[in-house]
Amino acid sequence: MVGLPARGKTFIAQKVGRYLQWVGVNTRVFNVGEYRREQCGAHQLHNFFDPENPEGKRKRQEAASAAMDDLLHWITNEEGTAVAIYDATNSTQERRRWILERCRTYQARAQLQVMFIESVCEDEEVVMENIRAVKLQSPDYAGVDPEAAARDFRERIRHYESSYEPVQERDLTYIRLVNVRSQVVVNLIRGYLQSRVVYYLMNLHVSRRCIFFSRHGESMFNVEGKIGGDSLLSPRGEQYANALPQLIKDNLGSENLTVWTSTMRRTIQTASKLPYPKLQWKALDELNAGEKYPEDYANRDDDKFNYRYRGGESYRDVVLRLEPVMMELERQHNILIIGHQAILRCIYAYFMNLPRDELPYIRVPLHTVIRLAPKAYGCEETRFRVNIEAVDTHRPKPQAG
Amino acid sequence: MVGLPARGKTFIAQKVGRYLQWVGVNTRVFNVGEYRREQCGAHQLHNFFDPENPEGKRKRQEAASAAMDDLLHWITNEEGTAVAIYDATNSTQERRRWILERCRTYQARAQLQVMFIESVCEDEEVVMENIRAVKLQSPDYAGVDPEAAARDFRERIRHYESSYEPVQERDLTYIRLVNVRSQVVVNLIRGYLQSRVVYYLMNLHVSRRCIFFSRHGESMFNVEGKIGGDSLLSPRGEQYANALPQLIKDNLGSENLTVWTSTMRRTIQTASKLPYPKLQWKALDELNAGEKYPEDYANRDDDKFNYRYRGGESYRDVVLRLEPVMMELERQHNILIIGHQAILRCIYAYFMNLPRDELPYIRVPLHTVIRLAPKAYGCEETRFRVNIEAVDTHRPKPQAG
Repeated sequence: MVGLPARGKTFIAQKVGRYLQWVGVNTRVFNVGEYRREQCGAHQLHNFFDPENPEGKRKRQEAASAAMDDLLHWITNEEGTAVAIYDATNSTQERRRWILERCRTYQARAQLQVMFIESVCEDEEVVMENIRAVKLQSPDYAGVDPEAAARDFRERIRHYESSYEPVQERDLTYIRLVNVRSQVVVNLIRGYLQSRVVYYLMNLHVSRRCIFFSRHGESMFNVEGKIGGDSLLSPRGEQYANALPQLIKDNLGSENLTVWTSTMRRTIQTASKLPYPKLQWKALDELNAGEKYPEDYANRDDDKFNYRYRGGESYRDVVLRLEPVMMELERQHNILIIGHQAILRCIYAYFMNLPRDELPYIRVPLHTVIRLAPKAYGCEETRFRVNIEAVDTHRPKPQAG
Repeated sequence: MVGLPARGKTFIAQKVGRYLQWVGVNTRVFNVGEYRREQCGAHQLHNFFDPENPEGKRKRQEAASAAMDDLLHWITNEEGTAVAIYDATNSTQERRRWILERCRTYQARAQLQVMFIESVCEDEEVVMENIRAVKLQSPDYAGVDPEAAARDFRERIRHYESSYEPVQERDLTYIRLVNVRSQVVVNLIRGYLQSRVVYYLMNLHVSRRCIFFSRHGESMFNVEGKIGGDSLLSPRGEQYANALPQLIKDNLGSENLTVWTSTMRRTIQTASKLPYPKLQWKALDELNAGEKYPEDYANRDDDKFNYRYRGGESYRDVVLRLEPVMMELERQHNILIIGHQAILRCIYAYFMNLPRDELPYIRVPLHTVIRLAPKAYGCEETRFRVNIEAVDTHRPKPQAG
């Protein structure tokens, strides 16, 4: 990452990390600020960041080195493709050359490609908003008066501004995001992974919004304990469809909303009473369980994420077909998804950063609306349980032993 | 489009046009050179393009206007989303303002968004190569000595160079592709369609390569006249799998190749004797025909592209799930796809720019390898028929009446 403080670097690093992890690339974020707080304690005021303060400078360099040591140790010991995100200001050419140099010494052990992501924001209002919303909650300012903290943080930014050099080295691989993506510059991008990250970053936005999701109402097949098929709602499922509009209205107010369903009748029926624009996605259809072979099913818990039914799909397959849906979801504002158990598990895992082995066991009960509100450092979750009985389709992970 | 002559503008325009058409967006390219040739005749030598030549200037402006008139007439009469590509040099700020002004007068009738795609190439070698490969074949130089033609074309470029202004107007939506995409600049990109085009352009490459494709060898289900399922090869299908390695070697030589299959046994078995790296794509699995309802099937020919089997897929669904595969195919070099009838029809239609109503009836016979070699203005096709009998699974479009 490259950029002055309060330019959304950590937000971007976290989002990219979660996205890559979700599509199956082993990814970890190394935040230099955390190393500094651990080594030097929190509550460092702006003087610590003054380039003319040799003591502060030395300590900041130590934190940067320690984070880089851990990063290089981690990435060179991972199997297969891995991505490490080095989350710090890296705001001078000298510092960026140091990063390249450190990585070069590891080239023998791992093929490291370095890509810089710079976030530039020239709008002082946006920066101040970011300081208020994020930085004042940071451990650096625990117990400090907000006004004083804001003043101190602006002083800290000034120290970096005096030596800031935007990324423009022609031999570096980089993407510059200028003023909330109104201009994007991309240099020497190579390979699939880098181009995926660029595309993802171009689709991200930072406006406030909510994502609601719910499974379809209880279906006839749920009641009968069958999976697959394209059944209609049970009478209790219909009651749920009738109750949804009020619940959404109570928790959304008068904002705009778009409803996404699969192409299956039970989701379309569940959405039928909602007074919002609707879109059907084939990619939101339930995991295809293929043909049933009871002898296969017994082994499914050994690795449920990768288990593919004969002629059907695994959770891994579902993540791949959902990827364009998630990209579009990042671009959109308020969305309500009426979906299916396996599909919503994948979507939930994306936003909540849950690992693949837990994903197939996430609880997404019937007759419950989940609301996620993305914030700078994660998602706020609220669950609304509608008081209409439904069968429980959850099967917990069997205990080993 | 924006750029000096011989910068690949027409190649880019054609590729973007074919891609958008394939994903379902009504798209048409308006090439100003064609209008000029029609109005003024071919064989205009470089003096015609000299900005100091008032007669040439007036005639070129007339061709530009006529193309723009047709473009605006076309796009404002299309229903739904449509994209018109205005393929000309548009190399001055004045000309770009004229384009915006022309579009603005049509704003009342259609919501037109204007996006500029600039192709910049600073490498004289690459430009000369492009002149030799493409421009000397152009109608402008039919019957002219190649050396003289190349000299004349370089003079033509000089005329444009003298007044060329790269796109940098801050209020324009644009993407600049510099030196075969080694640097990309993106400004004020808004909305889904623009961001798809940007991502597509970042994945395009212009290196020479081949795409081979073949259906799996004849399967047991082919012989029995069944569709769907995951059957193995028939004895004749196995013979085909044995014959493939020599056929590919004879027509590829010693170049690298990667083999893509679906996850179905008949494609994996067909690829099993090939001595190249292999990759299985779930997204290459055959169109899912769902459950069979004979009364539905009778109507399928009315609109075969959009017809979705109950609980299964339409050709439209298949195009959507293939889109990431095509994006990856654009990024790769030599690829051999061992696939299925409906899937290969979609891929063939992409490269050969066939309309959606013809797509479901494209002939992709068993035991035949198709080789496509992308060129500047389309694809060269070669078909290799292997002399092993197989059933014919093609069903032509019924004649109306």
